[in-house]
Parts: sequence; structure tokens; C-alpha cells
Amino acid sequence: MPAESVTPPSASAAEQARARQAVLTKPSGALGRLEAASIWMAAVQGTCPPSPFRQPAVVILAGDHGVARAAGTSAYPPEVTAQMVVNLATGGAAANVLAARVGARVRVVDISVDADPSYLDGVDPGIASRRVRRGCGSIDREDAMTRVEADAALAVGAALADEEIDAGADVLIAGDMGIGNTAPASALIGLLTGSDATAIVGRGTGIDDAALARKTAAVTVAMARASDVVDDPVLLLSRIGSPDIAAMAGFIARSSTRGCPVVLDGIVSCAAALVAERLAPGAAAWWAAGHRSTEPAASVALAHLGLEPLVDLGLRLGEGTGALLALPMLDAAASTLADMATFESAGVSDREPRADGGPDA
Amino acid sequence: MPAESVTPPSASAAEQARARQAVLTKPSGALGRLEAASIWMAAVQGTCPPSPFRQPAVVILAGDHGVARAAGTSAYPPEVTAQMVVNLATGGAAANVLAARVGARVRVVDISVDADPSYLDGVDPGIASRRVRRGCGSIDREDAMTRVEADAALAVGAALADEEIDAGADVLIAGDMGIGNTAPASALIGLLTGSDATAIVGRGTGIDDAALARKTAAVTVAMARASDVVDDPVLLLSRIGSPDIAAMAGFIARSSTRGCPVVLDGIVSCAAALVAERLAPGAAAWWAAGHRSTEPAASVALAHLGLEPLVDLGLRLGEGTGALLALPMLDAAASTLADMATFESAGVSDREPRADGGPDA
Repeated sequence: MPAESVTPPSASAAEQARARQAVLTKPSGALGRLEAASIWMAAVQGTCPPSPFRQPAVVILAGDHGVARAAGTSAYPPEVTAQMVVNLATGGAAANVLAARVGARVRVVDISVDADPSYLDGVDPGIASRRVRRGCGSIDREDAMTRVEADAALAVGAALADEEIDAGADVLIAGDMGIGNTAPASALIGLLTGSDATAIVGRGTGIDDAALARKTAAVTVAMARASDVVDDPVLLLSRIGSPDIAAMAGFIARSSTRGCPVVLDGIVSCAAALVAERLAPGAAAWWAAGHRSTEPAASVALAHLGLEPLVDLGLRLGEGTGALLALPMLDAAASTLADMATFESAGVSDREPRADGGPDA
Repeated sequence: MPAESVTPPSASAAEQARARQAVLTKPSGALGRLEAASIWMAAVQGTCPPSPFRQPAVVILAGDHGVARAAGTSAYPPEVTAQMVVNLATGGAAANVLAARVGARVRVVDISVDADPSYLDGVDPGIASRRVRRGCGSIDREDAMTRVEADAALAVGAALADEEIDAGADVLIAGDMGIGNTAPASALIGLLTGSDATAIVGRGTGIDDAALARKTAAVTVAMARASDVVDDPVLLLSRIGSPDIAAMAGFIARSSTRGCPVVLDGIVSCAAALVAERLAPGAAAWWAAGHRSTEPAASVALAHLGLEPLVDLGLRLGEGTGALLALPMLDAAASTLADMATFESAGVSDREPRADGGPDA
């Protein structure tokens, strides 16, 4: 996938939104970070006032990670990935429940699950029709995949974004499902932000101290294995990423080049986002940070991208759940900007001028 | 209003909720603070699994504060209170917009606005039919009201809670509207938590340094004026509270004694809540903290009550807006507990037992 060109969100809609915020019937700044969110909503929708999102879509990219089995970095057996794909496809996972609350469509796609595709018999075999490969290499000792596979995964992700946008989605969320996926995500974030493994590796699904030590070691070695290809996103993904994360990077990059906003979720989507910003410089302007995961690497990645999350409730689940929880906040931001009265329309007096003419005047 | 007796939320529903959280298809703890919220939802609804709230009601208690005019503690002229009551009654305020998003009813009540009631002509004169008095004393030099008025205000608030609950509300939010109201709220929180004024006074609607100094001085003097009546909530309210805050305390206390949960908002509702806990010990178990206001006193009060807010977006608007933003989080907590599949129902493997038998096992 060649570097894609990103058109920035509308500066004029943002400017109109900023001006409208100043005349709504509330003290300036009193809606806190909802005000900046409303300006972002106007910019990415290219109009002021913006609307709540009408058709959110969550695409959950599933894959297994050799490092989980080979290096013992997860608390769960790898078989859970396929089981959870079925759970997501049949509506029983957290992402399904949270998506239903906000009217979001959920699609789960097997990019690289390490299971015979027959696990989908009776569910929906189409879920595996875009599979790039079965599982991937253990990144502490071998490449996750070939460069050709990484390119294929990026293209699958981009095609999935195209499909959702063409079907009418006006905001996209990339969810993850894959036992062991926080290890490659941490390694990618470490290299792309210049952080040490010890500063960013977390407990994922809840590993004990021994597994945390194994995971930190695996991430450290993986980062060393790819330190010479940091500036080549595709090679980087093939060395220490994974097909599902590559697909997610392609998905996020394509959404941005198409001018469709993205709400980021936790550590895996943050890793994919860092790669997407390399693939499509400027893409980050199309993103909002949904939530602050408990994984340290996620916060490091968001800070690197200049994004501050809307929700901070200690979630560490993935699947897009943190992003889904943020949608009501974004919609509230748009609605207040659109529907509140202005000082003039409501006949409300604005503040008294400051005697000292200072910044609050 | 005599001390009221509080029946605790259901311990057995909470226990069932805790047990159900442990078997949902996600790592234990992965939904972060939504898990505790879901247990609270079960407890206050007395059933497991709990449901999203069906009929939220916001009652906005409006009043003016002599201290704003006499001591110059606000950035806005007192006339704004009446203007904003009209704005709330006609649907143009932030609370109206946010309430519409979550299906909440909004009612605004003039408890002590300092304006001729004719300001409501053509809007809804009934809004002032419960008025306790016009305005109130400047608490840095005189009592806010008489003890009889404080009792009357508490009774009005309790009656308003009764009316909403009898009309079917299953969760209540007390909103505030009143130029200058963060000064009495700060003084009450200071005395009831044993905090110095300098540690808790904030900029309210956005005052400059000179007004902040005036406000801190006024709160300091007010606290001294009432330091001998900290243990008498009614006298405390009459000395340094206000009719609207007294009504809010009565509203929150009665909701709790009726077994109806309350979502707290910012500094004013936190001050009223501290008083309500004195009026009805144990009431706090019926409350969730909606958001973390930028006012330092609000955080001090929430910590004193042992409550951690769900939303932290830098709001400082009042009107119940922070609580309204939290409702989707509480509803998401209830829905995940109710609707997610269990490991057994979905055929998903639980985690591998920890080798060390540690706390994550």
C-alpha cells in the first residue's frame, strides 16, 4: 500500500464551531473538553453545527499471535480467540452490547486466527473469507509474517473501511480480538514512540508477575529485531506486528484518506494508529481518542499523537469497547453545539467585562 | 425536617451482580469501573441483572445569592439567574440538550430567585409557585435565611423528590442554577469536610484573580460564621447555605429514603449531598458521582463521601450536566451485566489457572 494522501478536516467548519461555542448560553469553557470535541465534530463533518453520528460501524479484526503460545505472554489460552470470534458473531460479547446501546453495527473479521476455518461452520464462514494467514510468527524470535502478507493485510483493512463507508458509515471504530495482541502492539508503540519496553508493557488481560517478566523480555527482543526498520511501516509490521494489526492500520489509514472520522480504542488500535499515521501523514486529525486503557503503552501512543481520551474508566478489554463508550460524549458535544440557545436568542446577559482586561475578559 | 431513616440498597442483588460479573465473557476486571457501577445498579434496583434507567428526571433548583452582589464573587450579573431559568424552561440550556439525548425529563423550580415573579409571565408562572424567599443574605456578613425558611426549603425539595418518584422516575438528578452559588457550596463543603477555604475555592464561571481573592475571603468569613453549628444541618444551611441548596439537600435526602438512586453533579450538588448525608445517614449508598467538576471543593466532597466520578471532562457548568453525561455510562454498565454471554453459555474457555495461585488466579 503506497503512502496515501490525507485531506485535512474542514478548518472553516472548525472556525465556525469555535465562534458558535463562544455565544452559547453558558460561561465560556464551562462544557470543558466537550467544547473541543464539538469543534472536531464540525471539522470532520465539514459543517457547523455538526450532528451526532448517524451510522457508527465497528469492525473487529481478529488474529492470533505466536508470541502468546511460544513465550507465554497471555493469561488465556490461544483457543479463546476463535471462541470469542464466535461470541462476537453471535452477539454475546461486550462490544455487541455496547454497540447496541449506541446503534452501531458490529462486524467481526478473521484476519489471522490460528484455528481451522471450520470453527465458523454454522456461524458465518464468511468471517474467515478475508483471512491473510493462520496465526503468525512469535515476534521475539521470528517475523510475524512476510512483507507480502503485511501488504495483503493492509489492503484487506483498507477494503473493509471502503466497504463500511460505502455502506453509509459516518464514523468508524476498529476493534481488536486476539489472545496475545498486546505484545506486538507494545513493541510497535515502543519503537514508534522511542520508549523502553519496561515503560510500556502492561498486564493485558491480567497476567501475573512471571508472565509480565516474560512479556517484557519478549517485547524487548522484538523491538531489537526491528530497530532498523522503524521508518518502513510495512517491514516493521512484518517483523514485529501481526496480520490483524496490519489490517487495522490499513483500515484506519483508509478511513482517514476517505475523510471518515475514526474513534480510537485501546492499546491495539493505538499501535495501528501510529502505523497509520506513518502510512498516511496527517491522518491523526481525523481521529478522536475514545478512552484511556490501563495499558501504559496506550497512553504513550495517545500522547505521541497529541490525543486526549474522552473516557477514563480503567477498561482493558479491547473489541472497540472504550471507543463505543466515548460515542455518547461525542454526540453530546455535537448536540450541545447544535441545539443550545445563544445569549442573543435567549435574551441572556453575557459576563461583565473584566476590570483588568485580562484573558477571561 | 427530622432525620430520616435510610434502607440500604440490596446487598443480595449486589452479591448476585458480583458473581455474574465473574462469569461474563471477558477477563475479570476488564470492564474497569463499569463493573463496580453495574453492581451499584443492581443494588439500587434491588435486582440482578439490573436494567438501564427507564425514566431519569432532572430537577433544577434555582436561586440567587446575596454574596454575589455584595461581595462580587461571580463573573456574571445576578440577573442571569432569572434569564437562565427562562432558558431552561424553554429548552435552550445545556441541561435540556443533554437530557433530551438520554430521555430525561427536566423541571426547573424557582426556589429563591432574586427577581419579581413576573419574569415568568408568558413562560410558566408555576415555576415560582414553590419559592421560599426572594434571594438570600450575603453569607459573609449575614445569615442566608431564617431557620424556618431553611426548614421550608428542605420540605420543598423533599416534596419535589416525592412528586418525581410518584410520577415514575427511577433515577433523580438535582441540577443547580444560580449566579454565585459556588460560594455557599464551597463554604458548606469546607465546614463539612474540615477543609480550608484556600484549598477548595475555585473560579466558578471563570472569575479573575481579584474576584477569586474576594470569593476566598467571603468563604473564609462565612465558614467562621458557622463553625459552631456544623453538627446542626438546618442551622448550618440557614447561616451560610441558601434556599436552593437547602431544597437540593432535602431533594437528595428524600430520594434516598424513598430508595430512588441519585446521580450527583458538580460542586453545588456535592455540597447538598454532604448535608443530605447528615440529614439521612447512609443516604450516600444510593448515590453515584456523575462527574469531576473543575471546582476543587467538588473533588474534596466526593472523596469525603467515598465516591469516584464516572466522567472527567473538565465541565464546570452545573444544571445537572455532568450527571446527565454519566447516565450512558451507568446504562452501559447495567447492559453489559445483563446482556453479555457467560463463559459457559458461549463455550469460551476461562483463563488458565495461575501457577503461583496469586490474586489473579
